[in-house]
Amino acid sequence: MAQQQLPNFTTNFSDWYNEVIFLAELADHAPVKGCMVIRPYGWAIWENMQDVLNEKFKEQGVQNAAFPLLIPLSFLQKEAEHVEGFAPEIAVVTHAGGKELEEPLVVRPTSETVIHAMFARWMRSWRDLPIKVNQWCSVVRWEKRSRPFLRTTEFWWQEGHTVHETEQEAHEMAKTMHHIYRDFMQDYLAIPVVAAEKPPHERFAGATATYTLEAFMPDGKALQMGTSHEISQSFARAFDMKFQDREGNQSYPYLTSWGVTTRMIGALVMSHGDDKGLVLPPKIAPIQIIIVPIYKADSKEVVMDAVTILALKLRKKYRVEIDADESSTPGAKFYKWEMKGVPLRIEIGPRDIANNQAIVVDRLGMGKHTYDLDTMVPTVGKRLDFIQKTLFERAIERRDKAWITTDKTLAEIGPDLSEGGLFYQVGWSGDVSAVDELKKYKGTIRCILPTKTSTVCFHTGKPSIYDILIAKAY
Amino acid sequence: MAQQQLPNFTTNFSDWYNEVIFLAELADHAPVKGCMVIRPYGWAIWENMQDVLNEKFKEQGVQNAAFPLLIPLSFLQKEAEHVEGFAPEIAVVTHAGGKELEEPLVVRPTSETVIHAMFARWMRSWRDLPIKVNQWCSVVRWEKRSRPFLRTTEFWWQEGHTVHETEQEAHEMAKTMHHIYRDFMQDYLAIPVVAAEKPPHERFAGATATYTLEAFMPDGKALQMGTSHEISQSFARAFDMKFQDREGNQSYPYLTSWGVTTRMIGALVMSHGDDKGLVLPPKIAPIQIIIVPIYKADSKEVVMDAVTILALKLRKKYRVEIDADESSTPGAKFYKWEMKGVPLRIEIGPRDIANNQAIVVDRLGMGKHTYDLDTMVPTVGKRLDFIQKTLFERAIERRDKAWITTDKTLAEIGPDLSEGGLFYQVGWSGDVSAVDELKKYKGTIRCILPTKTSTVCFHTGKPSIYDILIAKAY
Repeated sequence: MAQQQLPNFTTNFSDWYNEVIFLAELADHAPVKGCMVIRPYGWAIWENMQDVLNEKFKEQGVQNAAFPLLIPLSFLQKEAEHVEGFAPEIAVVTHAGGKELEEPLVVRPTSETVIHAMFARWMRSWRDLPIKVNQWCSVVRWEKRSRPFLRTTEFWWQEGHTVHETEQEAHEMAKTMHHIYRDFMQDYLAIPVVAAEKPPHERFAGATATYTLEAFMPDGKALQMGTSHEISQSFARAFDMKFQDREGNQSYPYLTSWGVTTRMIGALVMSHGDDKGLVLPPKIAPIQIIIVPIYKADSKEVVMDAVTILALKLRKKYRVEIDADESSTPGAKFYKWEMKGVPLRIEIGPRDIANNQAIVVDRLGMGKHTYDLDTMVPTVGKRLDFIQKTLFERAIERRDKAWITTDKTLAEIGPDLSEGGLFYQVGWSGDVSAVDELKKYKGTIRCILPTKTSTVCFHTGKPSIYDILIAKAY
Repeated sequence: MAQQQLPNFTTNFSDWYNEVIFLAELADHAPVKGCMVIRPYGWAIWENMQDVLNEKFKEQGVQNAAFPLLIPLSFLQKEAEHVEGFAPEIAVVTHAGGKELEEPLVVRPTSETVIHAMFARWMRSWRDLPIKVNQWCSVVRWEKRSRPFLRTTEFWWQEGHTVHETEQEAHEMAKTMHHIYRDFMQDYLAIPVVAAEKPPHERFAGATATYTLEAFMPDGKALQMGTSHEISQSFARAFDMKFQDREGNQSYPYLTSWGVTTRMIGALVMSHGDDKGLVLPPKIAPIQIIIVPIYKADSKEVVMDAVTILALKLRKKYRVEIDADESSTPGAKFYKWEMKGVPLRIEIGPRDIANNQAIVVDRLGMGKHTYDLDTMVPTVGKRLDFIQKTLFERAIERRDKAWITTDKTLAEIGPDLSEGGLFYQVGWSGDVSAVDELKKYKGTIRCILPTKTSTVCFHTGKPSIYDILIAKAY
């Protein structure tokens, strides 16, 4: 394998990202502009994410189901704000079965409309509530500019949809999912996030509250990692979705929806990578340990025997592969698995075996270790935990360094903001004219922060009502 | 819950099928004609199927990936037979992002074309081969007449695609998957299948061999349960997919594809159901054991305590639910879980607990059993095995009864064939004019049988070359 050089992570981050996606074989461009193919190594990350989240969803009584890909255009039009939000992005099927369709069909950009129509059919009384369903699927939103995982016309996600008797219950559901996402991103992806509410102008089309997870990329841009929405009764009214409440009246229920996407893979790539390629947190890595046997013809048998036994032991607890490819050198293998971000590499040759040990190299770049073969399982377990923890700490440290809490005005911070690289915590009066003003500096309001330290609005100079986070964003 | 009456399984099979799908909450009609929603209980069956098959695929070195939903129309046109095969069924996106597209995009009816285009990019030499990928997704083929699970415009499936150096290796791959499917259908779904080759006129568009699994429904119709295809080099040529072979020459590789769909859920419903609803084989049932506690106010605590402990023990090995719904009677619960086909029901009341026992009722309709609570785990294990085995035996018995091996002519068997209910093993000379002649009797050639007992062709009277299976089909 010819070893292609990766652009520099620090000085050429954007090119680095584009290249590492391909060199690590996570994804490729699809023939249709703006669409991608997720290759097996990338998809294995997504499957690991699915496994963890499915477990957490199930604990909340959420059940998986499958809803249709094609939605009548009229369904989107039932909820006025919703169609307005999605109209510019939709892909429309006009012909099928050799004929022009009477009504055009939309390739789902999200499934609220069709799922709510089904909910309306399935609920009679409060006894049928809550309903909590989720689906894993892809959705299509036409994009002019695309980047693998971060912004593509087709992307994969899960979309959860629930129906509740009361506003309070819906509120709690949306918040619970918001917290499940936060914990997943921090504990599994090792990405620190701010869990907070979006300002009203940034809400999902039709929602009364949108909660977001905002992460901080090494280039100083914010990335929205997932959202949960309280949809109140607006969709229920639009779809005439009623139930008999405990008092015997016909009532409109309260709805939520919430989702995370393959964008999380992009966040994972950016958050932990380095000049050698990906660095994957052990909890989500498709391969946690790669074993590279090192031998000459006369030691092949003894080395491969030892490697087989070692892998057998390690596989009881970890995801382990052996790279026994004879057409490749150890050096080429090191390059390959570093590019793919495998957290731990075990090198083992005849002399190691004679000493009942092996060399363990972690992807953090924190040196080589010689570990005893007999205690390899617990030892690498501790090392994997250490890597997971260290990646999270490094990301927190980077975020904290770039985080500026300031009472300066937009005019003062604007030039630095447009340079990128910093996240600003400032006061805001809630005046939405700030949004357009921020655009001049390529800035956006990411979220309303849960704690307030400010006194004046960064835009109007009036008293501030909230602290907000402003940044350039993906 | 009002108890809706299910149509008679034997005398009104078609209505029974349509109703049981809804009453058991497997699926519902989607707003777009011909499309369906798979509800959580139906989707849980599909997820169980996915888990088993993913494991078997992985053993063959197959990796999951995700390919795009939208395919340029020109891609389908590259392989002449392929576009001809799918043209009448495709759904076409003509507008997106608020504009008419320069080139129409097809919503994938199957993904050979786009996957082969990607393969062409990923392979350089024989060292890159074989490539073996699979994706779980939905596909769209426009249907005039639809039935949930059996024939719908959108359906869910897995499609495996592989690339090989040699024809022999591709042949072995297609056969291996064919046998994996067969074993899965028989061992897990308890559905006996004939594993055999399709006659040439029934091959997949572009394939040189198609292997099919044919199952036998209680109404005497055959159901195609899954297919594997050898695609030879035709697609490789169409997509200019070459690799450097071991001799250093540029060669076209040999391809396979293979898939099974949500149609298997329809087969499961039909194969084992009865007048009370579904009967699900334990190995694939989302709920293997339903526990119904039976108590009055003064015995509630003791019963629920015992039920909790029992469920805790059983859940270590089985998929178990407790139906503790206080708004429903035991009778209504029995009705509900029989409709949903749960293999075993455990009823437990205060007197049972005093005797350290519980009542176990199996969904086969083979009586009630009193089992000791202390040995419940192994006892129900044996009972679940018995149910799995019995369902398979019953299905074999039914198939054998309907299977007629005959040397009669088409004119002689035609009237009975068009009545339905029987499967005919007859001799065939390979003369394709039989296909149109069969249509007069609503019959089709299902497959070329692996063993030959015939001497004359049922259609031409000439010497037969194969034994074939003919039947009405779904």
